Amino acid sequence: MKLLTTGFAPFGGERINPAWEAVRRLPDRLGEAELIKAEMPTSFAGCAAALEEACRLWRPDGVLCVGQAGGRACVTVERVAINLAEASIPDNDGAKPVDQPLVPGGPAAYFATLPVKAMVRRVREAGIPCQISYTAGTYVCNCLMYRALHLAAEVYPGMRAGFIHVPYALRQAADKPGSTPSMSLEAITAALAAAIEAAALGQEDLGTGMGTTH
Amino acid sequence: MKLLTTGFAPFGGERINPAWEAVRRLPDRLGEAELIKAEMPTSFAGCAAALEEACRLWRPDGVLCVGQAGGRACVTVERVAINLAEASIPDNDGAKPVDQPLVPGGPAAYFATLPVKAMVRRVREAGIPCQISYTAGTYVCNCLMYRALHLAAEVYPGMRAGFIHVPYALRQAADKPGSTPSMSLEAITAALAAAIEAAALGQEDLGTGMGTTH
Amino acid sequence: MKLLTTGFAPFGGERINPAWEAVRRLPDRLGEAELIKAEMPTSFAGCAAALEEACRLWRPDGVLCVGQAGGRACVTVERVAINLAEASIPDNDGAKPVDQPLVPGGPAAYFATLPVKAMVRRVREAGIPCQISYTAGTYVCNCLMYRALHLAAEVYPGMRAGFIHVPYALRQAADKPGSTPSMSLEAITAALAAAIEAAALGQEDLGTGMGTTH
Amino acid sequence: MKLLTTGFAPFGGERINPAWEAVRRLPDRLGEAELIKAEMPTSFAGCAAALEEACRLWRPDGVLCVGQAGGRACVTVERVAINLAEASIPDNDGAKPVDQPLVPGGPAAYFATLPVKAMVRRVREAGIPCQISYTAGTYVCNCLMYRALHLAAEVYPGMRAGFIHVPYALRQAADKPGSTPSMSLEAITAALAAAIEAAALGQEDLGTGMGTTH
Repeated sequence: MKLLTTGFAPFGGERINPAWEAVRRLPDRLGEAELIKAEMPTSFAGCAAALEEACRLWRPDGVLCVGQAGGRACVTVERVAINLAEASIPDNDGAKPVDQPLVPGGPAAYFATLPVKAMVRRVREAGIPCQISYTAGTYVCNCLMYRALHLAAEVYPGMRAGFIHVPYALRQAADKPGSTPSMSLEAITAALAAAIEAAALGQEDLGTGMGTTH
Repeated sequence: MKLLTTGFAPFGGERINPAWEAVRRLPDRLGEAELIKAEMPTSFAGCAAALEEACRLWRPDGVLCVGQAGGRACVTVERVAINLAEASIPDNDGAKPVDQPLVPGGPAAYFATLPVKAMVRRVREAGIPCQISYTAGTYVCNCLMYRALHLAAEVYPGMRAGFIHVPYALRQAADKPGSTPSMSLEAITAALAAAIEAAALGQEDLGTGMGTTH
Repeated sequence: MKLLTTGFAPFGGERINPAWEAVRRLPDRLGEAELIKAEMPTSFAGCAAALEEACRLWRPDGVLCVGQAGGRACVTVERVAINLAEASIPDNDGAKPVDQPLVPGGPAAYFATLPVKAMVRRVREAGIPCQISYTAGTYVCNCLMYRALHLAAEVYPGMRAGFIHVPYALRQAADKPGSTPSMSLEAITAALAAAIEAAALGQEDLGTGMGTTH
Repeated sequence: MKLLTTGFAPFGGERINPAWEAVRRLPDRLGEAELIKAEMPTSFAGCAAALEEACRLWRPDGVLCVGQAGGRACVTVERVAINLAEASIPDNDGAKPVDQPLVPGGPAAYFATLPVKAMVRRVREAGIPCQISYTAGTYVCNCLMYRALHLAAEVYPGMRAGFIHVPYALRQAADKPGSTPSMSLEAITAALAAAIEAAALGQEDLGTGMGTTH
């Protein structure tokens, strides 16, 4: 399986983005997966364009996007992306959409087509705390997940897509005044590796059930 | 505006459900809204049937369903319902669906068609903590919200629908061993009243934007 | 029992202090307790002076001080006050002590001499969430609790003292951007009333155990 | 500086205790500190005896005890230990004291005599999230911290003592159903190393201020 794996550029005043830091530390092969890694701009418009370009260029079998969810205590595999842009801070291009559909006329939501539960199970077996999440928010992360699933639905049938949110890296939390959960980049990277192995294997919930309801 | 306002029966070992306790304390008229109140069974199948029956009987202009979100610290107005049933505990009829669509072949999600932001704003102006939420979970609450919006989409065009989650009542939290957020029934009832007034007035985000993307 | 009951003035940019708002709503008699109510300045130096003056004037049998603990989800009865002033924001007189003992040469801590567990139990029986707390912080609240217990130890043997922290009032939380726990002033007031009734009755842990270890 | 560094045995159904796991991974020398490592029984009576024995045997210049604080998101350096045993679960010897002083007639509390703020600062500089804490709880951790400071006060003048609480290890959190903060053993070990270096250097708040108020 050729898997496009993306992480975002830093945003919101942070100096790093643990998503990209972890993605770029991944090996080029993981079990059945051959990884193509790409850093995505933290921009509603920019990430959509970069994703389309990468898919055109690489024709991946799957897309796994990774983003930072500051404040979450564990790795979360997202189950659904919604057709809504609602930003509380400007993105890296200065855009701050409110009440906007990501794709006018597009479906209200897409469910992930990577095997979410198998991925969560594998990450936990690898000893890293991991949960399913039912909201990817309304910022650029949700945007990219929606875009990837929409691209699959419209242009690349058979291409699977999903999204993983990761906590702050230790250093980010160490530099904040109060107490906020975090995770070492080593652990985040190990979690992504485990999730990718499951994604590359997993037929779990594909072709049936939630994989077909959107 | 004739507004069907529902609250659930107690579940999960609780003796009361603050949602129904607050709904039944509401007056029969609130600003422009004439209220029809109904208790819903906390059951995936049962609540769908009860909702359909109530809509057939009363032909409301809008449906506002209310449910308990134990652990949340404030009132939350839900923005989206997803086509997924995933129960971690059995419902009151003993059903515990996993990975099931609520409506096979239905859209992946519906956005609320009541004016979510105006409702949140009005509740906060009334002095009660309130936020938008982007996940109604995957239990019976999300089920009923999805069902109401699906019913509007399929059978009753023009009928608006939405969902409000409320914290535990004080008494529920007082009876638990640890510390968990809660809210007095008086405050929950006042929050619902304020939200209903806004819903009855509000054209806010209807006919445009997110109201039409599902 | 003549009980001096105090609440603090607003601080940290808040317009009200739920502690004083609740104290001033209490009746003048509660079971065996006759209440004397006093608002305390939110000032390390000022609250100590005001407390001494009030004790000299009223010669109470007990002192129950009440303060705001923004962010806590339930009423907490404090068990211990420590001899340390460490402010992260200036008090209302502009003082911002760091690493200072409250009373140079004083004991490192005092345990509350009001019946903490009986108070917690009674508040919960009244239906209001309540817990024991083992830290009153290092700001003005802890200062006043320490001062009251020190005053009892040094000047008024037999005078009992304790401290209750209360959550934000609803309105305070409603005016903040994110989600933070809160409680209605009615519930806070009912909690204080229940705690005071227990304090006035209670011999619970006095004359033995922790009441004598400081 | 000869520093006795302790970690507890697993308790409460856990298979490991991250405190001892991290302590035993430390090198034998760290900057100015020569480490003597000892596992402590998670028992009110047992840890006191083991500590006394270790101090008699090794005559350390300082004692740094480390314990697990499940649920905390960062490393915390404790500032104060109180003379109270209050267990919500039995210790590993089956004891479940309630409302008991640790040392009848002992002071109500002791402040840490290791340089708490310098330790916190150094850990954060090393990139690991760390905060001061003002409560070590009322279980065996607080017991051992109190015992170490009491032993210094009564028997070994000049021996400094302190306590660090660490989060769950990743594996512990991965095996729990919900989301709870955690930290890799590598990061916990690095935090302890940084804190110990600061402790071995630091004169910070010794001989003045809080170091002398107990």
